[in-house]
Amino acid sequence: MKLLRFGEYGREKPGLLDADGNIRDLSGVVPDMARDALASDSLARLKALDPTSLPLVPAGQRIGACVGNVGNFIAIGLNYADHAAETGAAIPAEPIVFNKAPSCIVGPNDEVIIPRGSVKTDWEVELAIVIGDRASYVGANEAMNFVAGYCICNDVSEREYQLERGGTWSKGKGCPTFGPLGPYLVTKDEIPDPHNLSMWLDVNDERRQKGSTRTMIFNVAKIVSYVSHFMILEPGDVITTGTPPGVGMGMVPQQFLKAGDTMRLGIEGLGEQYQRVVAFEQQGVDTSRGLKSESPLA
Amino acid sequence: MKLLRFGEYGREKPGLLDADGNIRDLSGVVPDMARDALASDSLARLKALDPTSLPLVPAGQRIGACVGNVGNFIAIGLNYADHAAETGAAIPAEPIVFNKAPSCIVGPNDEVIIPRGSVKTDWEVELAIVIGDRASYVGANEAMNFVAGYCICNDVSEREYQLERGGTWSKGKGCPTFGPLGPYLVTKDEIPDPHNLSMWLDVNDERRQKGSTRTMIFNVAKIVSYVSHFMILEPGDVITTGTPPGVGMGMVPQQFLKAGDTMRLGIEGLGEQYQRVVAFEQQGVDTSRGLKSESPLA
Repeated sequence: MKLLRFGEYGREKPGLLDADGNIRDLSGVVPDMARDALASDSLARLKALDPTSLPLVPAGQRIGACVGNVGNFIAIGLNYADHAAETGAAIPAEPIVFNKAPSCIVGPNDEVIIPRGSVKTDWEVELAIVIGDRASYVGANEAMNFVAGYCICNDVSEREYQLERGGTWSKGKGCPTFGPLGPYLVTKDEIPDPHNLSMWLDVNDERRQKGSTRTMIFNVAKIVSYVSHFMILEPGDVITTGTPPGVGMGMVPQQFLKAGDTMRLGIEGLGEQYQRVVAFEQQGVDTSRGLKSESPLA
Repeated sequence: MKLLRFGEYGREKPGLLDADGNIRDLSGVVPDMARDALASDSLARLKALDPTSLPLVPAGQRIGACVGNVGNFIAIGLNYADHAAETGAAIPAEPIVFNKAPSCIVGPNDEVIIPRGSVKTDWEVELAIVIGDRASYVGANEAMNFVAGYCICNDVSEREYQLERGGTWSKGKGCPTFGPLGPYLVTKDEIPDPHNLSMWLDVNDERRQKGSTRTMIFNVAKIVSYVSHFMILEPGDVITTGTPPGVGMGMVPQQFLKAGDTMRLGIEGLGEQYQRVVAFEQQGVDTSRGLKSESPLA
């Protein structure tokens, strides 16, 4: 299944994509595509539905983040050997874990805001794992049982805030709009091998990142198992798993996003995202409500 | 007001403490002590109620974390000059920001579990800020408008996971039960000066931490303002603000928690917490549901 959320920011409804690429309304079945609606028993119930029996959603809706009310937005750092190399960092001996503020989550085609005064806003196409069932101290051999599926995450990052402001990476990873998720959550049954997916990101139609999940250092099962030994993972938690080479910080000379730029990114089988980059000043005071969304489904 | 949550883990109801120290049931007024129920307009409505008109809750209830469904559990590191000194760290030039997994939040008197295989589990009494209104890019001069109130947080920490496992501090800060919050959220009107509160923590009835919020490096307004420049703060987000000296890591020789230990901690005006320390093995597989709670109100 391809599960998604549509409608106005903060008031999205749950839906699924039918065989013809139309959105069907699931709001009569689950309250949101969030939390317990993503648990394995709930997904089994959704899968048993006949999509054509669900209300057809008119075309042209804004697409929201494919997961709502995310309880923990976790990220794995330097998880591609060639990306670690481009940043000058050593290959990590065990997964690097950091956090993105859940308040940074937006739809896949919403505008991305350059934080006020920022000069080092960067892009990162990533495979994100969506947790289905509550996981605590699970082994790698059973970890896949706790995964609901996958989606694209643009792990937008402010490198000065991340690396030059002291302490952990949190400061540069959770700025408003820094977490586009979607367009849809693809359930794991449709992605038999998450470690052989091509992925790419273009800035202003120039290819910047090109890679494959094949070069991940720690795989999906290892990551879920590992993180579950440090914290309880809950249904609807999201773990984004690191980026392949080609980020702006790794270019010579370094290159960062500026207002007017566009990002287009995709992962095989998971769809595409498209974001227009805007300056903070263009957004006024309210930095995440009522964002303009570029296209219904990229 | 002293706002709290009572009842079984995961099914807590909202309540408030009346003038006689009895719990009054607020579940007919707000769905939970969480999110928008903590916004300033909601708190004004609660304050206008006559507590004696609310149902009296029978004594002996478990007390849950005083905030439910926390969207972001943020922590400030090394925010007391004398604690920075005891850990051998320099005084930070700007606040150090890290995250605790919201799934670690438990009631103030619930058992604290030593993670499987852990040998360096440590204590930290802290003043936690509860956010009331949504805050993005707010100045220090207006930051207090976005604060709902305060509570005690025991920022339980696993020092090996935090400092010796690579990457950020997240691994050692969000283990199951590492975030006791409460017993109650005290609204800011009852704490005119949050920077002059004595605080203490005993392990096995021996005083380990003794300090005052007076020695915080970055004060409440500065912290809220600062964090809001990196991420949107939402109603019900919690920021715990650092610990005074006396943690186990700073002792000579270092001393850490073991099964059977007890922690008792308090902050002037915010009540007390009491936790029994148990081994992971004593808890079985389900590490956070159905924890035994030592006492209704410490």
